[in-house]
Amino acid sequence: MKILVIHGVNLNLLGTRDPEVYGTESLDDINGHIEKHAQKLGVCVTFFSSNVEGEIVDRIHRAGAKGGDDASDAVIINPGAYTHYSIAIRDAIAGVGIPTIEVHISNIYARERFRQKSIIAPVCRGQISGLGAAGYILAVEALVREAAQK
Amino acid sequence: MKILVIHGVNLNLLGTRDPEVYGTESLDDINGHIEKHAQKLGVCVTFFSSNVEGEIVDRIHRAGAKGGDDASDAVIINPGAYTHYSIAIRDAIAGVGIPTIEVHISNIYARERFRQKSIIAPVCRGQISGLGAAGYILAVEALVREAAQK
Amino acid sequence: MKILVIHGVNLNLLGTRDPEVYGTESLDDINGHIEKHAQKLGVCVTFFSSNVEGEIVDRIHRAGAKGGDDASDAVIINPGAYTHYSIAIRDAIAGVGIPTIEVHISNIYARERFRQKSIIAPVCRGQISGLGAAGYILAVEALVREAAQK
Amino acid sequence: MKILVIHGVNLNLLGTRDPEVYGTESLDDINGHIEKHAQKLGVCVTFFSSNVEGEIVDRIHRAGAKGGDDASDAVIINPGAYTHYSIAIRDAIAGVGIPTIEVHISNIYARERFRQKSIIAPVCRGQISGLGAAGYILAVEALVREAAQK
Amino acid sequence: MKILVIHGVNLNLLGTRDPEVYGTESLDDINGHIEKHAQKLGVCVTFFSSNVEGEIVDRIHRAGAKGGDDASDAVIINPGAYTHYSIAIRDAIAGVGIPTIEVHISNIYARERFRQKSIIAPVCRGQISGLGAAGYILAVEALVREAAQK
Amino acid sequence: MKILVIHGVNLNLLGTRDPEVYGTESLDDINGHIEKHAQKLGVCVTFFSSNVEGEIVDRIHRAGAKGGDDASDAVIINPGAYTHYSIAIRDAIAGVGIPTIEVHISNIYARERFRQKSIIAPVCRGQISGLGAAGYILAVEALVREAAQK
Amino acid sequence: MKILVIHGVNLNLLGTRDPEVYGTESLDDINGHIEKHAQKLGVCVTFFSSNVEGEIVDRIHRAGAKGGDDASDAVIINPGAYTHYSIAIRDAIAGVGIPTIEVHISNIYARERFRQKSIIAPVCRGQISGLGAAGYILAVEALVREAAQK
Amino acid sequence: MKILVIHGVNLNLLGTRDPEVYGTESLDDINGHIEKHAQKLGVCVTFFSSNVEGEIVDRIHRAGAKGGDDASDAVIINPGAYTHYSIAIRDAIAGVGIPTIEVHISNIYARERFRQKSIIAPVCRGQISGLGAAGYILAVEALVREAAQK
Amino acid sequence: MKILVIHGVNLNLLGTRDPEVYGTESLDDINGHIEKHAQKLGVCVTFFSSNVEGEIVDRIHRAGAKGGDDASDAVIINPGAYTHYSIAIRDAIAGVGIPTIEVHISNIYARERFRQKSIIAPVCRGQISGLGAAGYILAVEALVREAAQK
Amino acid sequence: MKILVIHGVNLNLLGTRDPEVYGTESLDDINGHIEKHAQKLGVCVTFFSSNVEGEIVDRIHRAGAKGGDDASDAVIINPGAYTHYSIAIRDAIAGVGIPTIEVHISNIYARERFRQKSIIAPVCRGQISGLGAAGYILAVEALVREAAQK
Amino acid sequence: MKILVIHGVNLNLLGTRDPEVYGTESLDDINGHIEKHAQKLGVCVTFFSSNVEGEIVDRIHRAGAKGGDDASDAVIINPGAYTHYSIAIRDAIAGVGIPTIEVHISNIYARERFRQKSIIAPVCRGQISGLGAAGYILAVEALVREAAQK
Amino acid sequence: MKILVIHGVNLNLLGTRDPEVYGTESLDDINGHIEKHAQKLGVCVTFFSSNVEGEIVDRIHRAGAKGGDDASDAVIINPGAYTHYSIAIRDAIAGVGIPTIEVHISNIYARERFRQKSIIAPVCRGQISGLGAAGYILAVEALVREAAQK
Repeated sequence: MKILVIHGVNLNLLGTRDPEVYGTESLDDINGHIEKHAQKLGVCVTFFSSNVEGEIVDRIHRAGAKGGDDASDAVIINPGAYTHYSIAIRDAIAGVGIPTIEVHISNIYARERFRQKSIIAPVCRGQISGLGAAGYILAVEALVREAAQK
Repeated sequence: MKILVIHGVNLNLLGTRDPEVYGTESLDDINGHIEKHAQKLGVCVTFFSSNVEGEIVDRIHRAGAKGGDDASDAVIINPGAYTHYSIAIRDAIAGVGIPTIEVHISNIYARERFRQKSIIAPVCRGQISGLGAAGYILAVEALVREAAQK
Repeated sequence: MKILVIHGVNLNLLGTRDPEVYGTESLDDINGHIEKHAQKLGVCVTFFSSNVEGEIVDRIHRAGAKGGDDASDAVIINPGAYTHYSIAIRDAIAGVGIPTIEVHISNIYARERFRQKSIIAPVCRGQISGLGAAGYILAVEALVREAAQK
Repeated sequence: MKILVIHGVNLNLLGTRDPEVYGTESLDDINGHIEKHAQKLGVCVTFFSSNVEGEIVDRIHRAGAKGGDDASDAVIINPGAYTHYSIAIRDAIAGVGIPTIEVHISNIYARERFRQKSIIAPVCRGQISGLGAAGYILAVEALVREAAQK
Repeated sequence: MKILVIHGVNLNLLGTRDPEVYGTESLDDINGHIEKHAQKLGVCVTFFSSNVEGEIVDRIHRAGAKGGDDASDAVIINPGAYTHYSIAIRDAIAGVGIPTIEVHISNIYARERFRQKSIIAPVCRGQISGLGAAGYILAVEALVREAAQK
Repeated sequence: MKILVIHGVNLNLLGTRDPEVYGTESLDDINGHIEKHAQKLGVCVTFFSSNVEGEIVDRIHRAGAKGGDDASDAVIINPGAYTHYSIAIRDAIAGVGIPTIEVHISNIYARERFRQKSIIAPVCRGQISGLGAAGYILAVEALVREAAQK
Repeated sequence: MKILVIHGVNLNLLGTRDPEVYGTESLDDINGHIEKHAQKLGVCVTFFSSNVEGEIVDRIHRAGAKGGDDASDAVIINPGAYTHYSIAIRDAIAGVGIPTIEVHISNIYARERFRQKSIIAPVCRGQISGLGAAGYILAVEALVREAAQK
Repeated sequence: MKILVIHGVNLNLLGTRDPEVYGTESLDDINGHIEKHAQKLGVCVTFFSSNVEGEIVDRIHRAGAKGGDDASDAVIINPGAYTHYSIAIRDAIAGVGIPTIEVHISNIYARERFRQKSIIAPVCRGQISGLGAAGYILAVEALVREAAQK
Repeated sequence: MKILVIHGVNLNLLGTRDPEVYGTESLDDINGHIEKHAQKLGVCVTFFSSNVEGEIVDRIHRAGAKGGDDASDAVIINPGAYTHYSIAIRDAIAGVGIPTIEVHISNIYARERFRQKSIIAPVCRGQISGLGAAGYILAVEALVREAAQK
Repeated sequence: MKILVIHGVNLNLLGTRDPEVYGTESLDDINGHIEKHAQKLGVCVTFFSSNVEGEIVDRIHRAGAKGGDDASDAVIINPGAYTHYSIAIRDAIAGVGIPTIEVHISNIYARERFRQKSIIAPVCRGQISGLGAAGYILAVEALVREAAQK
Repeated sequence: MKILVIHGVNLNLLGTRDPEVYGTESLDDINGHIEKHAQKLGVCVTFFSSNVEGEIVDRIHRAGAKGGDDASDAVIINPGAYTHYSIAIRDAIAGVGIPTIEVHISNIYARERFRQKSIIAPVCRGQISGLGAAGYILAVEALVREAAQK
Repeated sequence: MKILVIHGVNLNLLGTRDPEVYGTESLDDINGHIEKHAQKLGVCVTFFSSNVEGEIVDRIHRAGAKGGDDASDAVIINPGAYTHYSIAIRDAIAGVGIPTIEVHISNIYARERFRQKSIIAPVCRGQISGLGAAGYILAVEALVREAAQK
């Protein structure tokens, strides 16, 4: 099973930006944890990080290109601020049709009003919000469980 | 570690109501899975199910009464329809101050507009939505992980 | 044919509350009229009245438990004020899947703005509003007519 | 007792338009049923059907002209799409002051958002919605019952 | 100077509808007053009354057809309920470009919320509201004054 | 008959401010026209002009103090910008209970959105808008006509 | 192939109303162009123009009456101002089920806010807006192309 | 004089929940203060506390049952979170017609947006908000003063 | 202890304006009652009444000027209509930082929609609404109680 | 005449994404049809496709750089999801001032609410929506017709 | 060059009100800085401070009275709370037509929602917000620069 | 002191786009003025211009990377159209924590409604709008002044 983990805009600041909100671990630290946990579960994870909306769209397209080098069985995405307005990313996810879980490190429902609406969520399988970096690991588990049930 | 799992209104219909949305497992089936998984993790789970908003509030209060028979270290709650309007349950959760994770079996953000707003979420630690009954198990894991980090 | 008639919150005040709006008949008087009319049509009616939202949900569940003592073929419900915000009752009606008609004694569309929206109506077969206590009898007739056509 | 039944815009398509929503009976079929039922109750019904908003207004005026050939004791009206925006028809009903019942064949509260608001309802005695063509017959009964009580 | 006075929907009920709001004079009485006053000022008035939105539009078009039999120098219009939603009448007024004054017998700003918005007003020269049937006479005076100033 | 004419905020700029909207006559010019016309009708007019909301309130109070030097039988008011937000002036008009007509030189319904709502209008007898300075004279006539009818 | 072209309210003013917005051609000129182009494509076009909403509804019904004299294979409609509020015309189009293209001469999305919403568009095959009278001809081509593909 | 004091949902947490907002006194402490003050004024107070909306409705009904054991002359109610959405409690208060004063310990207008709207207030005699537990005592005084004036 | 009582706009009309809403006592009568009650409690009250928003702001500033002749320990304010829009008065209260209680004679939550929002309340200690002129006396008591607790 | 055709975000998925909505032709197929048709009309078309908002802006700028290699006489653009929020693309179109036609393959007015608003349309010459890939060809024709008329 | 600096409501509290928001300098201190800087630039500044909306309007009028003693070439205004609702001050600024710059010491866009909207800004040349008292000095510079360019 | 000046989307069109709104100077001209002025103040300025939202985010990150080649002490940003919807840029500014001033050449509050809301402003130190290209220079001055005060 191949899972693509997409980190959206500003997530490369992790560890330096608002540590009381996002924690002190860097993006590499988090990716390390995910990878370790995925290996235990026998899952292959790939990471992609970009601040450019259109590049994220491109990457999702490649994940959906069956048989291509970058094809994936599932996607875990934290779109960052694009969560709230990128219909482009929403359409990309819906367009390729791969099972996708949306993850947010902080509880977006306890923050500013404009952060309480995800335009991405309706086309995802589900959403995990507010459980810290552990949310990514839970998402991997959820995808593995679901695959196991088929 | 003691975790209280609260099933809110209409969840006792699980297995018979809209199986294509909520699956075919009954509430007892789901509780069985949770219990089994919790035992593996060395966690004690208690279940509470009610259709009465005020009884759910009462139960949360007892969970928060340190030293009482019904005291818990954490709460996992699926408030059902109360998710969308029960400020009473929100205040109960905020009032007792126990770490709480909100779980929804279906992806509430892919349903009717009025189901896309949780009035409970802002006072919870986090939310897991749309990952089926596995959401409860992921919530147990998240609570155990968090406890382990302290 | 078994029909369950549910009177929701504050309807037990009938006859004493705002007689110019709701008439001077008590709830027992109205139930008597319904019963008499139902007998003529060869229909069995049961009555349930509660001010507690969750108890109304419970009663609807029992009405939907095929083969149970409280099972019904159809429901007539006047939820009272719960009409306007109880997604819990809405979900109960939709969940059990019994044909349901919503009845309001007064014309809710000629009253305060917040009373002009029924959150229950979309999951009911239909709605009768503003025709006084006769609305219940018309609802019985409608259910009998419909059953006759099958 | 003389009752005027008004069929508003597009209702002449009945039987051909969206049969799964409106049934397969034509407007003439439905009028036949109403007439038969009314005769049993000793009531005289007249029918009027028009797609022109102003002609419906004119007809309501004539119904209200006491002593005129077209005067009626009561009105049953299904305004069709005019339900949602014709303040003109609303004012006509309120202006002539004849008891009026609004009927909708389909459950307007289970359809598009803009169909869930009746601008006519506040000036009617009551409303019957979603009970199919039987709604007209129930409206006749309601008017007869009410007259009997005076 | 030729002035066309247009009475819109339901205004033919004047004298019988809500006398405490609209007074007891019939439309003919009011037209008589307007005519008498206009004669004193040397102005020719024509009256048009219809409940059909499209006929009002037609009549405005004829008023604007320079050189036609029905051409007018100015229009006084009380559109009745069409005031609040007839973009068609609005466009007709704007399209023919004749100076137009909107008149309302009652104070529309002291009534229901939906009556407090005139969709016609922005394309009229001005509006007189709440001054009773005298509003028409004041409108005639205003048009005469304005013509005199040129 | 004594009529008080109140000119609200910024009306002292008349003649210099946006002449294409408000005309080139100064406030004194306009008052002169009103006075001349009032004399013809045998009416006594007093003028009051202020940019201070509270002073306008004070003046209305004095107009309403029966028997006082500044008592008036009727008020004509152009509140200027206060039209749109001064609940204080609204309450003063309603509080003293003198027949009041609101006048606007320009057509407020053809201007910015925030100018299209008068918070004063609901407590006035009526409103004349968009007919230029002649609006004041028409208001005097309306008040005289009304007094004559009693 | 038979195509019905419907010109709605105020379109008969074309050539005289706001020439800078709508051009200087009259409705007859435009119909001439359409006819000439349609002949080239071997298509039969019929024209209908009315300012009365209900007559437009009637005409659409006749177009949809299979086998009738006025039956059509497709409809091109410019409803004029009815675009923005006539649920009646919307329902007529949806009710008869003929492929329909909505045409606007001006770009309605570059005009007043209330013109930027078409209540008709959701039930049409498509919409052409802002391309002048050529929009009708493009609509004819689109219908011919589509028919050719079947 | 008999006064019923109703404590709504979550108020039993007083003393432990957010002490900086609600103070450190328990509900029993507060009831003790009220009782002591009431005795001085020669008034009999009864207390009722519940987290169940329907039970609060039931209790209000009993307070309104003239001659019953639980009948009261006045009610003081702090509905807790039900303040903001319980139309059921609102209707109960309005239905029994007993003078009622709404009390809030904290200033609800200085808190979250959804707490700034009381759906109960319009049917109460008045409201005291933000004056701490003393608000109950002031409410008792207000009721005694009012009774004295009759 | 020195308390400043501010009566805002139109309150000088008390006794003559809408007696059924505001009672028949004049402002002087009410001030007399307040003064008498304050003397019993050993409190010194000063009164200020103005219809000018800016003068009320000025007076609040002087109340807040520690050591000045007009300095006060607390403020009781009934801003009248300014309650609903005077951010200036709100800022003055917040700026000087003196404990302030807002009083309304009528129940503002049972009146027009625009009166149901106080822009002042969030910066006050609390609010008493709907308890008539007694509200001022209760406010004095509340301030004395609070001072006693320190 | 040189026309630039811009395909915005996710349009490179054409043929694979939701074939029932967008058809089965790939973007290359569609471009082929456009090119063939353009050649017949003697028009030169260039194609540009990108998922990156800013690159689309850049390309529009180059189209507007008179005399540059990438300069165009007209633009046809299908912005994809950017239609609904890219003020950047809107400003680019308005900034370069080239005649632009917006094309949508599906009828955006029959889809989700957020897709029914084009932020691009107000600065375009016109819009063609819902006519499938033929919309591009109709746009080419419209531009050629317009050029021919000059 | 003569510049008038207007300090609106509550600005006389500067130095004592919320020092962490507005700084510790008094209004006199700030005026001193402005004066000193203006002298360097050879500009004459006058200061005006009032809490009364109407007096600010009066002062702006005098600034606009060409040739009068109080005439100015430009205005710098910090309206305080009037920023958010005084259409009167807006109209005064627009009416006199003098170049005006709006200054706010704090960043109004980082504060309460109602402070994020300036009703004054659309009629000013520009706005400087959030740069502390230095904002006034920057405004002087901007006016001088602009004058120099003519 | 090192200041980074960021020009956002479409600003490279300056000098050619809407000269009456934005002036005739090119971006290079403006940068030249800024540089010259900065040199006088002993400040080092760097310029960055991009139409790609994500590249702007990247550049802000580099400015915030203490010790990196692109690190800056302060940022001046004109995001162009991204001002109104780029939560991504907002989060980047807030994330790096460098003092930032937002500049707009035109007065955004005097333009279309959607341009009157800056989503960036709340996380900036302040905003300068409507003062032309001089706004950049004023921003440099403001930053220098602030640095001098520390």
